[in-house]
Amino acid sequence: MSTLQPAASKTLLDQIESPADIRDFTVAELEILAKDLRDTIVGTVSRTGGHLAPSLGVVELTIALHYVFDTPRDRLIWDVGHQSYAHKLLTGRREEFSTLRQYRGMSGFPKFSESKYDAFGTGHSSTSISAASGITLAKNLKNCKQKAIAVIGDGSMTAGMAFEALNHAGHLDKDLIVILNDNEMSISPNVGALSNFLSRKLSGKTMSRVKAHLVEKLSIYDVGENILNILRKSEESFKSFFTPGMLFEAFKFNYIGPVDGHNLEELLETLETVRDTSQGPMLIHVLTQKGRGYEPAEKNPDIFHGVGPFDIKTGLSLNSKKSTTYTEVFGNTLTEIAERDSKIVAITAAMASGTGLVEFSQKFPDRFVDVGIAEQHAVTFAAGLASEGLRPVVAVYSSFFQRAMDQIIHDVCIPNLSVTLAIDRAGVVGDDGPTHHGVFDLSFLRFIPNMVLMAPKDEQELQHMLYTAIYYDGPAAVRYPRGAGEGTELTGNLKKLAIGKGELLREGTDILLLPVGNRVYTALEAAEGLDRLGIDAAVINPRFIKPLDGGLILEWAERTGRVITIEDNSRQGGFGSHVLELLSSSGLSSVKTSLLGHPDNFVEHGPQKILWKNSGINEASIVHAAIQLIGSV
Amino acid sequence: MSTLQPAASKTLLDQIESPADIRDFTVAELEILAKDLRDTIVGTVSRTGGHLAPSLGVVELTIALHYVFDTPRDRLIWDVGHQSYAHKLLTGRREEFSTLRQYRGMSGFPKFSESKYDAFGTGHSSTSISAASGITLAKNLKNCKQKAIAVIGDGSMTAGMAFEALNHAGHLDKDLIVILNDNEMSISPNVGALSNFLSRKLSGKTMSRVKAHLVEKLSIYDVGENILNILRKSEESFKSFFTPGMLFEAFKFNYIGPVDGHNLEELLETLETVRDTSQGPMLIHVLTQKGRGYEPAEKNPDIFHGVGPFDIKTGLSLNSKKSTTYTEVFGNTLTEIAERDSKIVAITAAMASGTGLVEFSQKFPDRFVDVGIAEQHAVTFAAGLASEGLRPVVAVYSSFFQRAMDQIIHDVCIPNLSVTLAIDRAGVVGDDGPTHHGVFDLSFLRFIPNMVLMAPKDEQELQHMLYTAIYYDGPAAVRYPRGAGEGTELTGNLKKLAIGKGELLREGTDILLLPVGNRVYTALEAAEGLDRLGIDAAVINPRFIKPLDGGLILEWAERTGRVITIEDNSRQGGFGSHVLELLSSSGLSSVKTSLLGHPDNFVEHGPQKILWKNSGINEASIVHAAIQLIGSV
Repeated sequence: MSTLQPAASKTLLDQIESPADIRDFTVAELEILAKDLRDTIVGTVSRTGGHLAPSLGVVELTIALHYVFDTPRDRLIWDVGHQSYAHKLLTGRREEFSTLRQYRGMSGFPKFSESKYDAFGTGHSSTSISAASGITLAKNLKNCKQKAIAVIGDGSMTAGMAFEALNHAGHLDKDLIVILNDNEMSISPNVGALSNFLSRKLSGKTMSRVKAHLVEKLSIYDVGENILNILRKSEESFKSFFTPGMLFEAFKFNYIGPVDGHNLEELLETLETVRDTSQGPMLIHVLTQKGRGYEPAEKNPDIFHGVGPFDIKTGLSLNSKKSTTYTEVFGNTLTEIAERDSKIVAITAAMASGTGLVEFSQKFPDRFVDVGIAEQHAVTFAAGLASEGLRPVVAVYSSFFQRAMDQIIHDVCIPNLSVTLAIDRAGVVGDDGPTHHGVFDLSFLRFIPNMVLMAPKDEQELQHMLYTAIYYDGPAAVRYPRGAGEGTELTGNLKKLAIGKGELLREGTDILLLPVGNRVYTALEAAEGLDRLGIDAAVINPRFIKPLDGGLILEWAERTGRVITIEDNSRQGGFGSHVLELLSSSGLSSVKTSLLGHPDNFVEHGPQKILWKNSGINEASIVHAAIQLIGSV
Repeated sequence: MSTLQPAASKTLLDQIESPADIRDFTVAELEILAKDLRDTIVGTVSRTGGHLAPSLGVVELTIALHYVFDTPRDRLIWDVGHQSYAHKLLTGRREEFSTLRQYRGMSGFPKFSESKYDAFGTGHSSTSISAASGITLAKNLKNCKQKAIAVIGDGSMTAGMAFEALNHAGHLDKDLIVILNDNEMSISPNVGALSNFLSRKLSGKTMSRVKAHLVEKLSIYDVGENILNILRKSEESFKSFFTPGMLFEAFKFNYIGPVDGHNLEELLETLETVRDTSQGPMLIHVLTQKGRGYEPAEKNPDIFHGVGPFDIKTGLSLNSKKSTTYTEVFGNTLTEIAERDSKIVAITAAMASGTGLVEFSQKFPDRFVDVGIAEQHAVTFAAGLASEGLRPVVAVYSSFFQRAMDQIIHDVCIPNLSVTLAIDRAGVVGDDGPTHHGVFDLSFLRFIPNMVLMAPKDEQELQHMLYTAIYYDGPAAVRYPRGAGEGTELTGNLKKLAIGKGELLREGTDILLLPVGNRVYTALEAAEGLDRLGIDAAVINPRFIKPLDGGLILEWAERTGRVITIEDNSRQGGFGSHVLELLSSSGLSSVKTSLLGHPDNFVEHGPQKILWKNSGINEASIVHAAIQLIGSV
């Protein structure tokens, strides 16, 4: 029983400083708390934007976990972490919650540095079981009794590393707890219902009775001793036969569920049972509804997965529609090319909408493949298609392509297959922060032999580059940023660009500006600014990060004697360093250089414009760098 | 019946020019062919070295696949590909087989460029189901009826991407065939035996009879209609309950097996049935014995997995024992450190022996973790351990770390955790060729913020670097090459190196040589050679690729005005380009530079010394580059 008296003006949530405060609540009070959490989450996210539907889906689960387990001593790991808003609100971050995803405010994901309750930092999917396994072994080696609990969505379960972890955790056989947050109803309702029936009605006495009779009856038949031995051996294997837990039982996990993820009583009972019985690796299957408790999100969980500011009453976005995004141009152009060429196959990894491929998927369902969160498979699957003469295009965000580097090297570039990588969200992405910024792709792709690597200065050039990549006989990648394009008009005439040829956009005698992709117009503006200061800057759009247009770049580097490279990518090992290699190998050692790009630390979250400024790749920074380079001896 | 008459002096194998030649053989003839293949494989590998045990294990399976399927129109994909020797011998490469893994000779792996029968190039594990899925979809889109067949070992099944592919292939529901080559008996003999019993005795009539009775009897009990519906619905789910196929049935694969992989009659019958019945994705579980037919390999399949030249009669290695390898020094040193510190945990990915961790695993079984072929999980699991204050060391080959780059970025470097990466086989590895050369790790690790990256010049320095990495508060990597060290004496005194500090090995006025890792002694020898030519070269061992010792390098770069970097890594984006970035940011633009490293193409297979020479990173190349740089204007 709780002794807490809700103050008139204060909600229950207002009185929670840490999870310890909720552990003497009644179920009725926890239900009020759930409502408070939902109100706060909807209210805040309607202003800040964020991952609304995932967080609303796990409000009761979050309460139940903190109620039952001894957090932070027990370690709670949120896979992906975009569902952690209720967790943040319950763990001493109520005040800061209004700064969610704001510049210098609270991260949208769990972070070690933000709270001792964030047992592991996340952002990318499917890492939680691995981390929880490591934590579990560490606790065993240190003779600690605390638990590690991984909460992972059914979508995240499709990634290979989740399976690697399940497979290994089953083998490790330690007291690990995995909560499968099944919110997409990917297991069909009737099977789920049957499973529910079985795990509730057949567990315990009924189960044993059925089993005993089966054994007895089977012995009449001429089927040998073996079946009987199996039946005698394992109750779990009987249960697993009938339930969606079959898969997990195969990995030696103890399967419990499904549990109604919005029924606090049921959740508490299940989790308490699990907590109090040490039985090796356990998987608890919890059914939740994305967007639960906020009608617009319940109806459109996809739209409310990640949203910008919206009107609470209507659920309508408050962002006015800006000019077309790069993503839209990519999707439309690919659809257009596919209309004329049946060899085009589009592949994405659980991001049909995010990569602009919804229309494509509707028009060409046979040539659209969503492999789930499985970037490694996506790339090698594309290589398989290409090996048979098709022209696959893999559309994945830059930071998620990091998962498939080996496949890009081994299955695409070594055999030199015509796979196109459409690298969306390249450069800083904004509010999602360091786990999601696409600031390494130029560095990890440009050293791979056979790779052709492009970045468009605008939407029109994206069209040409996509067309060029698709019909290039070998691997080619096009990287383009998150958000609106430059507003250039699309002529509709797709053309093949000459591989490795850049374009001189501005002649100049004092300095050469070499901007990549979304930095090209910024550099042109900087050149105008420099002009007003009496500095005559040449500007080349290299178009190709690899192969570089050595002829054009060296000509103007020599003419001006000074080169500034500008990229929305790490300054380490990216385009700029490629230009340095070019200068080195050409013997042009007298050219002064300055590399602008993201520095050697992880870029925080915040609006793209602020991050570009902070990293010194906006117009003013280019002007400043040019003045410095000209002023230096 | 075959009309082929074996000539007196010719074996049956001698008469095979393509798989078509075996398709009218009798089973007895195929068995003779199997013996011929084994004799040739053992004979050749005893001279060339190679993957003997895996290839001996699949001789009958290879014959059966080419006999039953219409290769090369049906696509046969060998996972990893180290088991493809019989395949190579049967597909028109009998003559060249004697050049196996020799410089400019036949590759040890399947390769598009080598034969039209090599439907997909391999080398790294667990790619075959992804590739076969892509090929299958391509054939569907082109309305071709040919099949794609992936042959994958049970070890390769532990990698995440195999599961990503299984999961997706089940969903695709096309006629894909996966052969699970189960050669490690990882499924225990009695379960395998039972499964065999069930799939043979219960398939067909007995199965139906048992099922009907179960349904009848169960209806007596008060367990509702649901169980009965399930039982009525699916014969397969009943079968899967009892067999190791449970797992694959969960992925919607049709499971068949286990089949005796050395019984040609059984193999042919099974494969013909599968070929003639289109039933969506099929998984055929084949039991084989590694090293089959060659006694020393049967007894020691691990040793004969990959071997150097050996005496056929005794099975003993013909390679005389050279000086201690880097791998051995790593393993011994880690064991020594772990004796004094219980926080040390060693993690490997199915490579305990290859990474020198056998002794460690025996001395500290609780602190040794082999996660299987699961590099992604290995790294994040280590991050979990580190987050609890332990000091995990992940020992993986350089080219396999490519699979875990995202986890290194996301789970180790963003949270800045003290995980040590022990990068074995860095640089060219020799006979295994392009898929296995570790020539990208400097390029894909040095741009990651927070990463400390070292390479030792010799065994003694490896010891210090390992010690330094383990006790550094943050991520640290040590990369060291395949093979024997320099023969330096080990003092046994481990010491912490100053982070980011290099050592000046030789003063000089004309040029600065900056070699990394195994290139340091080579550069010292080159400096001696230059000395004889009247050129005075300074040599710095930077020790740290990241952070660079800017002070020391810039001082000597300025003194000499010329810098040559030398690395057993790609010349693109690696150590050399990092030095160029340093020179650029310091404004030392007048320094002439030359970057030596592997060029921008995939390095072929062959002895390390030849490859170093070809890529221009041996002593003579350094001398040549120095003369050129000094001679240039």
